[in-house]
Amino acid sequence: MAQSLPRSPLAPASFPDLPVIKGAQFASAAAGVKYQGRTDVMLAVLDPGTSVAGVFTQSATRSAPVLDCQAKLGGDSATGAAILVNSGNSNAFTGHYGQKSVADITAAVAATVDVPADRVFTASTGVIGEPLPQDRIVAKIGELNNGLDAGRMEDAANAIMTTDTFAKAATAQVEINGSTVSIAGIAKGSGMIAPDMATMLVYIFTDAKYEQGALQALLSDLNNTSFNCITVDSDTSTSDSLLLCATGASGVDAEGNEAFAQALNTVMLDLAHQVVRDGEGASKFIEIQITGAANDTDAKVHGLSIANSPLVKTAIAGEDANWGRVVMAVGKSGAAADRDLLSIWFGDVLVAEKGWVSPNYREESAAALMKNDEIVIKVDLGLGDGACTVWTCDLTHGYIEINADYRS
Amino acid sequence: MAQSLPRSPLAPASFPDLPVIKGAQFASAAAGVKYQGRTDVMLAVLDPGTSVAGVFTQSATRSAPVLDCQAKLGGDSATGAAILVNSGNSNAFTGHYGQKSVADITAAVAATVDVPADRVFTASTGVIGEPLPQDRIVAKIGELNNGLDAGRMEDAANAIMTTDTFAKAATAQVEINGSTVSIAGIAKGSGMIAPDMATMLVYIFTDAKYEQGALQALLSDLNNTSFNCITVDSDTSTSDSLLLCATGASGVDAEGNEAFAQALNTVMLDLAHQVVRDGEGASKFIEIQITGAANDTDAKVHGLSIANSPLVKTAIAGEDANWGRVVMAVGKSGAAADRDLLSIWFGDVLVAEKGWVSPNYREESAAALMKNDEIVIKVDLGLGDGACTVWTCDLTHGYIEINADYRS
Repeated sequence: MAQSLPRSPLAPASFPDLPVIKGAQFASAAAGVKYQGRTDVMLAVLDPGTSVAGVFTQSATRSAPVLDCQAKLGGDSATGAAILVNSGNSNAFTGHYGQKSVADITAAVAATVDVPADRVFTASTGVIGEPLPQDRIVAKIGELNNGLDAGRMEDAANAIMTTDTFAKAATAQVEINGSTVSIAGIAKGSGMIAPDMATMLVYIFTDAKYEQGALQALLSDLNNTSFNCITVDSDTSTSDSLLLCATGASGVDAEGNEAFAQALNTVMLDLAHQVVRDGEGASKFIEIQITGAANDTDAKVHGLSIANSPLVKTAIAGEDANWGRVVMAVGKSGAAADRDLLSIWFGDVLVAEKGWVSPNYREESAAALMKNDEIVIKVDLGLGDGACTVWTCDLTHGYIEINADYRS
Repeated sequence: MAQSLPRSPLAPASFPDLPVIKGAQFASAAAGVKYQGRTDVMLAVLDPGTSVAGVFTQSATRSAPVLDCQAKLGGDSATGAAILVNSGNSNAFTGHYGQKSVADITAAVAATVDVPADRVFTASTGVIGEPLPQDRIVAKIGELNNGLDAGRMEDAANAIMTTDTFAKAATAQVEINGSTVSIAGIAKGSGMIAPDMATMLVYIFTDAKYEQGALQALLSDLNNTSFNCITVDSDTSTSDSLLLCATGASGVDAEGNEAFAQALNTVMLDLAHQVVRDGEGASKFIEIQITGAANDTDAKVHGLSIANSPLVKTAIAGEDANWGRVVMAVGKSGAAADRDLLSIWFGDVLVAEKGWVSPNYREESAAALMKNDEIVIKVDLGLGDGACTVWTCDLTHGYIEINADYRS
């Protein structure tokens, strides 16, 4: 990466032990996309029968690889599948040349690995607006193919990092009818390579069997309350991609199984939280719990309005229990709110209720709590049953340093 | 104010010479609302026949004075009117007590100045969630009334400042049928007193004659392309208020007069720009011109998406012509965009067109331009005739210092 950033103070203590996901193999290589000698390409190859589901950025200026992946979702899962990801260049806003880059890479992967080109998914993350040097990537596909191994998922997690300060992975296992099904996923974000924007990439693998359409429905549903409920700075990447691959190699059908869905949700939330914990300049991990909204959609609008408010985020960076800014963010969100029914807690401390500061509130009690690394803000709208939880980090000098002080 | 901030580097060279607005008088006083010895209350008294139009924050948690003003708009202009504004306490999120504070103040003004209470408009700006010490304000109303003078508008501009680094005013004169009509306005923003949020207050006066309903329509229209097109940090105050008072004392009817509307627009834009120029931590004044959008509404959505993007704002703070972040902000806005029709200029330098970097673009040409205090970004969507211009400032360490480092 362009400059070496210290490991986030909010990072997990260590990289998790990842189980082998039957039917999935991984490899990584140094292709010199932007920097020489840096591991910057990963390949995942999935056995025939793998269902692939995906969710992507909603950006109107999304990248060529995103458009290609979206077109390929829902394809025939009888064949195998492959995922090739590079860091160092996002192949975004690269015009028609960007589509050629994707076509060249997917054709080369298909020619080397035994899958059709329309089952090769790619992603690119890094600098935007520069043509992708796809020849350097194509030149490494043989090496990647030779290096494939079920135990190399951690290498893959490292290969997709940009200015991430730690590699991100999460895992879970579930017993279904006496058999074990494994889930493991990797993610990158919210790093930045000048002059690029933050990008999030997530790949989750399971050896469960799950029909493709049902897998897509499950993923879209869980994504709504995990990755779609995190924000670092309200800026949406042109490249955000999440693929979920169910190889079926365990022989265990998990479709409709509640324990499986819960385990997958745990993995997704874990990865989503790790992205926030690596938010640029983050010094506090913030959970915002909204209850009592008119409906769940309103709850999310309120939650994200608080989570994206620069005044709320700077107050928390300053360890200031500034509930007035929470009131402001609720008020501006556009979702239903009644000032006189609103209650606000910092942690377990009730600070405001019924349109005014709580009579028992003493600033000292919240002040102690604001020194923690993890801050919980609860807001009850007093209107209905709508609820949502969102996660963000604070806004610090570190964010300005990463995004303004370092030049491309 | 809590701490003394240096005058913004983007401030105008001097306070303008304001003309007398016939039919309007002003006074200010030190009531000790939050700090002793600070001028913190202003009173404006307007002759019978004054039309009063207003626009206010759309916040769902708006303050008691805002709710009171909104209820009073459209009242009988045959009587006079009065405006009382205090700084130091915003009387926001103060429950039912907040309404009592407003009622006490308006009753006291009505008893001293010869106007009915339903023609007394108030505003409060400063700390939120604390009861307003209205007795201190009420105690000063006699002194304010005795001090009324047509030449004291500058004192009024000073009285409404919080952490503003300069007092803001703008003026214009128009000839209508051989007679001169004057317009003068004052504003405060985007200051902050911890633990409060930024607040904007604007008062504009003219001696033109203008029927109240027509004046409201004109104000709402012009507000849409002036104050509603500025942003410092995307956070909306609970107290934003703009009142426009037409005393009619010049005897000149300006209703429907295009030159008057243009002059008023000039004053509103000037004040709006001054608020941005005093944005917390601002080092660059940024104008974002959107053309070629599907419609004007879409153009504004794109413009504000760019203006509110922390990544765009930090790039400009770092003097980085990072057009990739502009692409990102257009893509995430939700309004219509086609990547391959998009063109982007920094100043007069075409940096990107047709979905890719412009073939003639050299980073050096934009880099020199980014060192200026004033930056123009132009984006053409290539879709239709929709256009809008918005204004903002950059996001610097100064913003973090003001909002995180200083504690309440």
